[in-house]
Formats: sequence, C-alpha cells, structure tokens
Amino acid sequence: MDIAAYMAEIGQQARAAASEVARSTTAVRNHALLATANELDAARSELAEANAKDLRDGEQRGLDKAMLDRLELTPERIDTMIEGLRQVATLPDPVGEITDMTYRPSGIQVGKMRVPLGVIGIIYESRPNVTVEAASLCLKSGNAAILRGGSESIHSNQAIAQCLAKGLAEAGLPETAVQVIKTTDRAAVGELITMPEHVDVIVPRGGKGLIERISRDAKVPVIKHLDGVCHVYIDSHADPEKAIRVAVNAKTQRYGTCNTMETLLVDAEIAKDILPMLASEFVAKGVELRGCDRTRGVIEASVAVEGDWEAEYLAPILAVRVVDGLDGAIEHINRYSSQHTDSIITENYTRARRFLTEVDSASVMVNASTRFADGFEYGLGAEIGISTDKIHARGPVGLEGLTSQKYVVFGDGHIRT
Amino acid sequence: MDIAAYMAEIGQQARAAASEVARSTTAVRNHALLATANELDAARSELAEANAKDLRDGEQRGLDKAMLDRLELTPERIDTMIEGLRQVATLPDPVGEITDMTYRPSGIQVGKMRVPLGVIGIIYESRPNVTVEAASLCLKSGNAAILRGGSESIHSNQAIAQCLAKGLAEAGLPETAVQVIKTTDRAAVGELITMPEHVDVIVPRGGKGLIERISRDAKVPVIKHLDGVCHVYIDSHADPEKAIRVAVNAKTQRYGTCNTMETLLVDAEIAKDILPMLASEFVAKGVELRGCDRTRGVIEASVAVEGDWEAEYLAPILAVRVVDGLDGAIEHINRYSSQHTDSIITENYTRARRFLTEVDSASVMVNASTRFADGFEYGLGAEIGISTDKIHARGPVGLEGLTSQKYVVFGDGHIRT
Repeated sequence: MDIAAYMAEIGQQARAAASEVARSTTAVRNHALLATANELDAARSELAEANAKDLRDGEQRGLDKAMLDRLELTPERIDTMIEGLRQVATLPDPVGEITDMTYRPSGIQVGKMRVPLGVIGIIYESRPNVTVEAASLCLKSGNAAILRGGSESIHSNQAIAQCLAKGLAEAGLPETAVQVIKTTDRAAVGELITMPEHVDVIVPRGGKGLIERISRDAKVPVIKHLDGVCHVYIDSHADPEKAIRVAVNAKTQRYGTCNTMETLLVDAEIAKDILPMLASEFVAKGVELRGCDRTRGVIEASVAVEGDWEAEYLAPILAVRVVDGLDGAIEHINRYSSQHTDSIITENYTRARRFLTEVDSASVMVNASTRFADGFEYGLGAEIGISTDKIHARGPVGLEGLTSQKYVVFGDGHIRT
Repeated sequence: MDIAAYMAEIGQQARAAASEVARSTTAVRNHALLATANELDAARSELAEANAKDLRDGEQRGLDKAMLDRLELTPERIDTMIEGLRQVATLPDPVGEITDMTYRPSGIQVGKMRVPLGVIGIIYESRPNVTVEAASLCLKSGNAAILRGGSESIHSNQAIAQCLAKGLAEAGLPETAVQVIKTTDRAAVGELITMPEHVDVIVPRGGKGLIERISRDAKVPVIKHLDGVCHVYIDSHADPEKAIRVAVNAKTQRYGTCNTMETLLVDAEIAKDILPMLASEFVAKGVELRGCDRTRGVIEASVAVEGDWEAEYLAPILAVRVVDGLDGAIEHINRYSSQHTDSIITENYTRARRFLTEVDSASVMVNASTRFADGFEYGLGAEIGISTDKIHARGPVGLEGLTSQKYVVFGDGHIRT
C-alpha cells in the first residue's frame, strides 16, 4: 500500500466533504448523529464480533490487562456511545453564531461569525469509543474528521466507521465527512500531521510520548494536552474543614485523571495544625505521602526529591510541600505546575484574587477541587480534550474549540476614504 | 558572539519580565507607554542621527529607493510613533476581563479570564516605526516582547529601544519587558523561533518569503499573514452604482495593501451591461485589465492566464473573470482566494446570506469595499497584523489576539462526587 497516496486521497476527500458539512444545516448534522446512534444500536452483534477479534489479537500480542480492558466494547459501553451521540445532537449548534455586531464610524457594520475549522485530524489510542466521541464533536461543529485510532482496536474502529458512514448517508452528508484510517501503518500518522493543505488542526489524545512526538513533527497546528501536574494550596486563612474536604477529593476521587492533584502545598503558618489531619485522611485511603523536610518535621512521609515536584503520578502517591505563604505557593506552582489546574483554599479575599491573577494555568480555582476541570463540569456539553497550550484553546476544549471566527461586514455601497 | 547563548539569555529575561508585566496594573502599563512617548519626543536628535547612519549604510549597500524610503524616520513619522503610543494608552485594557461567569449544577461558578500570552516574538522588516507599534501592543496586552527588526534599521531600532527602556523604567517595569535584539546575525531568528520554553508565539511581519520560512522552521505557534488575494463579486442583483463605486475603491484606493482587490468577478447575466462601465473607470485610473475569454468578449483586456487568478499584484493590475452566478463566484473564490477578504455586491438577501456563509475567508463582506479589512476600521483600536490562519486569531489581530483566556472557578469547599 502506498501510504502517502492513500493519505493524500483521504485528505482530498476530507477537504471536499468539509465544505459540504460546513454548508449543511443544524438539522442535517443532528440527523446524521441520531442516525449513527441507531446504526450502532442495530450493529451490536457486528461490533461485538469485530471487538472480539481485536481482543483475541491483543491477547496474542501480549497486551496487558489494563490495555485489554480499555479495548473492550461491552454492551454498556455501546450504550454509552449511543447515548453520547444523542446528547451531542441536543447541544446548541456553535456554527453561524454572530456576535459583537456593531456600527463603525465609517457606517459599516462589523461582527464575528463562528465557523468550522475545516478538517480535523484526531489521533488516539486504544479505546474504540473515542471514534464515536471524536466524530460526533467534529461533525456537530461543522467539520470533517480524519480519525486514526490505535492499531490494537482496528477492527472495532472499522465496524464503528461503517455505522458512521451509514448515519452520514442517511442524513444526505458525504460518507467522507468522517474517515477512519484503514491502515495500522505508522507512516499514516506521519502523513496526516504534515498535510496542511488538507488538514487544519490535529488533536492528539493519548500518552505523553505520543503527544510530544506529534507536536514535534507536525506541520499543522496541534491542540494538545501534555501533563496534569495539578496543585492545591492550603492558605493559612483557609477554613480547615473545606481544605481537608477539597484536598482529599482532589487526590482520591480518581487517581488516574489529568485533573487529579499531584502536589499539595501547605502554608507554613498552619502546617503543624493541618498536616496531621490531612495525613490521617490520606493514609486511611492508602495514599503514599512524599514530603519536603518541613513536612517530614510534622508528619510521617518519605523524602520528596526534586523529581517529585514534577511528577504526574496518576497513582495513590502525593507530594507534600510546606511553603512560605502565598508567594511561596505561587512561586512553586509557576515553576513546577504543568499549567493545567491549580486551586487555592482560603477565606482571604486578596489572596484568592492574587492566586487567580498570578497563577498562569488553564484553570485556576478558589475553594474547589481540581477534579472539576472538565468540559462537562464547566458546561461545555462535551469535551474533545483539555488543552495545556495558550494559543487558540486553553483548558477543557468543547465544540467552540473546534471552531474559529470570521469577520462579517455589512455595508450599503460603503467605500474607504 | 555566541548567538545561541545570547538568545537564551534574552529569552530567560523575557520570561521573567513577562510575569512582572502580567501582574502589573493597567495604570503602570499605560504609564510606561506615555513615558516612552515622552522619551521619543526628547530623543529626536538621537533618533535622527541613528537613522541617518542606517540610511548611509543602506545607500552604500545599494538599497533601492522604496526600501530607503521605508527606512527613513522623518519628524512626521516620529510624531506618528508618539501619537500611536498615546492612542494605545487610551485603549481599554483587555487583561483580566472576566466573561461568561455562570453557576453550574454542581454549585461551582465558572467563567473565563482574559490573560496575556506571555512572551511574544516579533520579526519584521525595514520600517523602524514597527518597533514602537509592536512594543506598545505587546505591553498594553500584558506581554513581554522580543523584537527583531531588519538589519538595515539596526541603529534606528536600538535608539528606539533606549527610549522604550527608559519609559519602562520610569513606570517601574523591567527594561527587559521589551528587548530589541542587538545582533543582525540571521542565526538569532533561528534561535528565536525555536525556544518554546521562552517564547509563546511568533508574529512575523514582512514579505511572503520571510513568513513562509519562519512558519516552516518555527517550533512555536506563529500568527501569520501570507497573501492578500481579495475578490469583489458583482452579482446580477447588484445595484450597478454601488457595484462600480465599491469595485473601484477596492482596487484603486491603494494598490499596495493586502486588502486591495486583485480579482473582480462579474455575474455572466450582467457582464455585458456593467463591464464597459467598470472598464472605463479602471482605464481612466491607469489600471491594466487582464480578462478571461468572456470578459474579453465584452471589453478590451489582455489575456488572463491561470497564474493571474492566484496573483497578488499589489499594483495597478486587475484580473477580471465572468462567472456563472453565485455558485461560480463561490467556487472561484474558495479555490483561488487567499482566505483574506472577499466581498459580494448584491441587493438579494438570500445570495448575500449564502456568500457570507459559504465563502471561507477571514473577512466576508456585503456591499462594502475590501479595503475596510483593517484593525482600525473594525474598531480593534490597533492592529498587530492580519491573520490568514484559522487557529487562534483570524482576520485583523488587535490586542485580544495577543491574549488568551483561562478558566476561573469559584467554590465554597465544593468537591466532585
């Protein structure tokens, strides 16, 4: 197979489909989403068969249990995919929204219209349900999509792709509006991220290695998420009850998510009082504590080394550091944070305000758990990912992140003088 | 000189200054702008001397007259720089604006805060007044700037840099908040665009060659402007008087700007009536017409070849094509336009609406001259450039384009369940 030629064809088809999708009405795009949901429902046995093939292949290739679990399309997961499509159909259409329309002194009327980006390339790993999620968000926002899933889920993804193609066709949209790459050859990714003439933006989802590689090699803008090294800072003016509740939730509600707290910062003024209470909660939940010298002067903890301040454990391990007030906390966060999500616990107005302003992260919070950093919790309706970039989209990225704005100008024969 | 080490130092200083600038108040940043204006006013003789040196060097190096003209800092141009600084000081501060603050069902309150991007690298060519313009917009929007002007204006730029440093110091801001690169070595540009740890975005201003080179090699996001191949389409339902007025203005008000019309499209239904009137206007203004076969069947014009549809003449030359209605116009534009600015002239509601929706350009207009595509005309107050990209900023880029938005979350001990 000539991968370059195959990908160029995929790209050309996507570009052509993108203008049809962009022109389509809200009703037509919602029709495609709902029709795909029905197709998935009708194809449960085909999906199960394709998935069983991936699982068998995966076992033979020696994939570990966690990987095989993520790969599995249980009936409940198929339900979730169907439900997800129906939910995306109910979201407001971001395309065509006109804002900020004002008259200028020249007499022209100027505003901005929200428009699709065009063609979105999405590269992801084992979970086949991402195929549906990504396709639905791209389609809803008026874009064409090129999807490249993990090689281990190729049969599941192709079975899902057939449902998408049927759903698109039922709504009168081109089947090429969503294309799932048919080859597992890695060269296809290399082509996908270097076709600016056919692809407007790449969204990689997966491990840090994958995302770094893609960012380095891409010739197309990338909306990406690297680390989630999130902090909670407990200020001396914190309400201790709120502080403990939020810190425990931020660490232990789920260990493996990017918005989980990885380092707890405690104001030196209250370290002696609050650390023992925190430690007993964390120890009871089986969290290993790694502390700085001052922390270890108050509670039992293993030694935190420099690497711990940079670590995204995604595990029941927590780094704990005693800092000198708000300045110490901000200095630590702006040095070690991955600029994902950081929260201050305080009752002090001025300190809350300074934290919000001076911490340079995608989400900054007061008296709330970092676990809230999520498209659904923020009311975006859906989430294609969380961006740790500053350009274009920052923080949870919903439908709006898959769109752009163009200027619209109304005149009545106006000329510039 | 070790360019890599020099640029790394510049980068580190900019990164450190950026957090000071981001934290500074509106009043402090405005103070710096106004103080710089006064410093420029007081340094007129130093500026003239430095500029004379650049002009002498330029003559010796055989720069052409247009280039030398752009390089010259006349007293009037110094006045304009001073006036520009004072105007930027009067603009509303975009930093810190909080929007879309709403309560979520969980009880948290979520909104977005506008924040500086951080460090902005600007690469430009001969006109030294860009040094002041770029510095003022970066500073106003709370960013640090690293400026790299053309080698031919090095002395003028360094003299301006001294005024900026004094102005910043008077306001209590670090002088490193705006750094003008002191070497003319080209390697400095190579370093500047590959330091993502120190630079958040690059804005290249200049010829297409420069911008293409920078986009290709950058490891940092680039806000760029490539071509301005702008169209006016005269629909069969156009008011002929408005059509002629707008078309003539779009082409002839200024020939050398990126928002000048380069191709005129005329609906076949009215070509016989309107082309002769248009031709006589253009010929009277000395514009050379290059037409398709159908155009040449109606008026006198030289033969337009394929390359004419892609040409950004920046000169008194106009390509003219007769198209079959709105569909023909949209097809031509979406194929040949540089997605900069395109305008339809029509009295027909449905056709106007289709043009706005289906033409995929940064500015789409109805019954208005393409010459309006400009930050000042759109009410942005200032303009760092016009983006032909879709990501982050599209069309004229003002202060807002030099900022990003982070999420702010207010809770009261809220946890996720």
